[in-house]
Amino acid sequence: MDDIDWRPDPSLPIPLYRQIEEFMKRKIAGGEWTVGMKLPSQRDLAAAFQVNRSTLVTALEQLTSQGYIAGKSGGGTTIIHHQPERQEEAPPPPNWNAYVEDGVHYPNLPTIQTINRMEFDPEIIRLGTGELSPELLPQRQLQQLFAELARQHVPLGYEEALGSYALRSQVSAHLKTIGIAAPPSAILIVSGSLQAFQLISAGLLEKGSAMLLEKPSYLYSIHAFQSAGMKLIGLPMDESGLQLSHVERFKRQYDASLLYTIPTFHNPTGAIMGEARRRELLQTSRRIGLPILEDGAYEELWFDDEALPPPLRALDMHGQVLYVGTMSKVVSPGLRIGWVVGPQPVIERLADIKMQTDYGSSSLSQAAAAEWFGAGLHAEHCRVIRRQLKERRDCMLRLLDAHWSDFATWNTPKGGFYIWVTLHAEISMAALFERALKRGILINPGYIYDRSAKKQLRLSYSYASFSEMESSVRQLAALIGQLGNHLR
Amino acid sequence: MDDIDWRPDPSLPIPLYRQIEEFMKRKIAGGEWTVGMKLPSQRDLAAAFQVNRSTLVTALEQLTSQGYIAGKSGGGTTIIHHQPERQEEAPPPPNWNAYVEDGVHYPNLPTIQTINRMEFDPEIIRLGTGELSPELLPQRQLQQLFAELARQHVPLGYEEALGSYALRSQVSAHLKTIGIAAPPSAILIVSGSLQAFQLISAGLLEKGSAMLLEKPSYLYSIHAFQSAGMKLIGLPMDESGLQLSHVERFKRQYDASLLYTIPTFHNPTGAIMGEARRRELLQTSRRIGLPILEDGAYEELWFDDEALPPPLRALDMHGQVLYVGTMSKVVSPGLRIGWVVGPQPVIERLADIKMQTDYGSSSLSQAAAAEWFGAGLHAEHCRVIRRQLKERRDCMLRLLDAHWSDFATWNTPKGGFYIWVTLHAEISMAALFERALKRGILINPGYIYDRSAKKQLRLSYSYASFSEMESSVRQLAALIGQLGNHLR
Ligand SMILES: Cc1ncc(COP(=O)(O)O)c(C=O)c1O
Ligand SMILES: Cc1ncc(COP(=O)(O)O)c(C=O)c1O
Repeated sequence: MDDIDWRPDPSLPIPLYRQIEEFMKRKIAGGEWTVGMKLPSQRDLAAAFQVNRSTLVTALEQLTSQGYIAGKSGGGTTIIHHQPERQEEAPPPPNWNAYVEDGVHYPNLPTIQTINRMEFDPEIIRLGTGELSPELLPQRQLQQLFAELARQHVPLGYEEALGSYALRSQVSAHLKTIGIAAPPSAILIVSGSLQAFQLISAGLLEKGSAMLLEKPSYLYSIHAFQSAGMKLIGLPMDESGLQLSHVERFKRQYDASLLYTIPTFHNPTGAIMGEARRRELLQTSRRIGLPILEDGAYEELWFDDEALPPPLRALDMHGQVLYVGTMSKVVSPGLRIGWVVGPQPVIERLADIKMQTDYGSSSLSQAAAAEWFGAGLHAEHCRVIRRQLKERRDCMLRLLDAHWSDFATWNTPKGGFYIWVTLHAEISMAALFERALKRGILINPGYIYDRSAKKQLRLSYSYASFSEMESSVRQLAALIGQLGNHLR
Repeated sequence: MDDIDWRPDPSLPIPLYRQIEEFMKRKIAGGEWTVGMKLPSQRDLAAAFQVNRSTLVTALEQLTSQGYIAGKSGGGTTIIHHQPERQEEAPPPPNWNAYVEDGVHYPNLPTIQTINRMEFDPEIIRLGTGELSPELLPQRQLQQLFAELARQHVPLGYEEALGSYALRSQVSAHLKTIGIAAPPSAILIVSGSLQAFQLISAGLLEKGSAMLLEKPSYLYSIHAFQSAGMKLIGLPMDESGLQLSHVERFKRQYDASLLYTIPTFHNPTGAIMGEARRRELLQTSRRIGLPILEDGAYEELWFDDEALPPPLRALDMHGQVLYVGTMSKVVSPGLRIGWVVGPQPVIERLADIKMQTDYGSSSLSQAAAAEWFGAGLHAEHCRVIRRQLKERRDCMLRLLDAHWSDFATWNTPKGGFYIWVTLHAEISMAALFERALKRGILINPGYIYDRSAKKQLRLSYSYASFSEMESSVRQLAALIGQLGNHLR
């Protein structure tokens, strides 16, 4: 126990004593600090953690009251939790930490784990969050819809492998409105599009397969594919989305099996691929035999009335495209409802794996989603959301113009949630992330989406309120200024 | 296209022409039969499929009306779906079937795929299904609960990584009633216990790890662990559950990382591990350093008032046991809500992977589950279910006594859903499965749960109605008699 090389992190908005308490519990629960062990003196512990004596005492009091440790009358403090029956010969509890390190699945990046955790702090300003603000969610309509469900016979049993037929029919009709023809038998209901990616990597791709994708991309920020042993090969982008010039060479060079793309309101750059490039991509994909995985998460969130290019899947005459959609970005992420559209053998294979994975998605969510589309609530809701998101985008652009134009450039997204900002000069993004967090502002650094994107960050106008946007864009400008000073 | 070695299966209750239609669509969609190909003559096709000409014609008419094929004026039929722009140089659509075969995840056994599919045929008698009959589900109470939710503010956003705090608090209180002490921070909400197993195999176990488990076991019937590269090592059982004599040797021999057990109302045998053996198992596990994964799916479904032995987790003083529970077997499988209880680093690791896998479980289901426990509906519902399941068990036992005692033996389960039947002589279980299916009866052959269980089948009294039990137990007796005749 002598060499404690961990310290609480004052940049986190969690009290230091709580961080210490959690750290020590982990050591004990994980079997690293075993029962009967004596703790170092309070003075030494406080020094090791680099905190005040009083902070340490508060942490120890917490642990004492929860029965992890006890003061001995002769002085000193001892670990007493999980008291073994016969101390002398009792082996330590299993070393779960070794198990935690053994799994084949990669942990999330620390920055992402912090983001995931901090997003549930009600005080934080979420300037990076890829989610509709609660006030934009159709709370009222969904409450009504639940009342409606309460009058019906909600299915409570296990669902069909493809998902409830009622929902698949509704999704089929919905897809028609964006130009995609898909009968219910070509649709698999999933628990959000993220699950679709998991199923595809487990069910369709060989271990070690390479997948081409935009760089930066949403997919770099999760480890589903990497953990399944996939290699992700980034394609450069311009304002019209991924550049086609590298596709063929990379496909050959890496023997790629699939091309993943977010052609409409790309995450994180907000870019949209024009129709000409879509057609060219389909042609290339066909010629070189590289199927496409199209992510349409933001498809419906356009701001201007000019016609959007159709989804790749709508232009696909040859079964080259697997299409993934979701209710998360327009209706409600909490429903955890998405869908995959594709050739029947693929859909059935994915359905079989889904049965092995979780026996299908929540029937309650499926019933609510079917009711949402069936009651015709979707089109009107989209209209409202588009107008409000556009106002939010405009507000964010005005703020950036006013406060950031000296040191950064950005795009003007025509839909979706994101503005991709590039600073003129490189600063430590990790430091910016931490200093912003200290001030209660959560941002998404570009390196989450592309390790080499050191001057970028993704701002989102979908979540924070107008006044939060204002105050945080200002504060960030100051922080960036401080961090960049030594560069000037 | 000359050598079609597939035939429609007359034992399936799907019309032959539909099976042919599906088969041909798959060939076309999968790129095996390419556009422009001429089909063999109707006579030859009918012969290849071994069906009447009229059956074949019906199938071809279906395909024609859906635009897959067209009759040529000069005679003959051609595949026209996915008409390429320039026929001469157009490559075929991607060969999705190759992708389907490439995935790292194993497909379900054909028998299990058939079961999964046939369970949704409303005409079928489900004598093997591990699910409460719809009339036993708390439909009325849940409808009321949805009405209640409609008056509240249902969370619609992404949920915390561990799951909603409200639900974790309720689960914590619920676990206390079965003797398990777990604060909300030691609980991870999952989309059914099956997902917990997926997360554990991805997050805690090295590729190629060995896991000890009962033989037979529920876990052999899904491929989650095998697909993740785990080796499953079966331990022999007696009436008191898994035998301990082999645990230590197998742990050493296979370097096992985990022992999976269903100590209470085991699936498929219905066995229950006595308290003495539980304590001994914990001691052994501790001594040899083999943590336990305890599956408590049927824990609450006891029929008699004698005290049940406590869960292993309740007896565990040293953090050796990961406990998994679910709402599926008692309340509603469609909710897809379960939980994992364990040491904090393990729970946090699993939560991180869950975020990468599906961003959490349906908030709607979580809200409904929290409301279910919070409203105090659980205890009364359990009382009702136990009484009804006991009556069903007694009915099934009487039927077996009357019709099966000449050729089989079985146990008397004290809870849960299942009776594990052993025939005196070996017959072809695959043939019994098929012949029963032809008569509209779905059974679960023992080999799903243990490849060597050739004389066993799992009967369930939880799903079929009393009259369905009666007629199917009778019919099965006759079928088993026929299949066994040549053995006598
Ligand atoms: C491009 C894209 N696809 C998919 C998702 C995942 O959404 P869900 O799993 O909630 O459907 C997101 C969410 O951030 C996204 O940005
Ligand atoms: C022993 C056991 N565990 C777990 C499950 C899976 O239940 P769920 O994923 O619905 O919680 C089952 C279902 O058959 C089971 O029998």
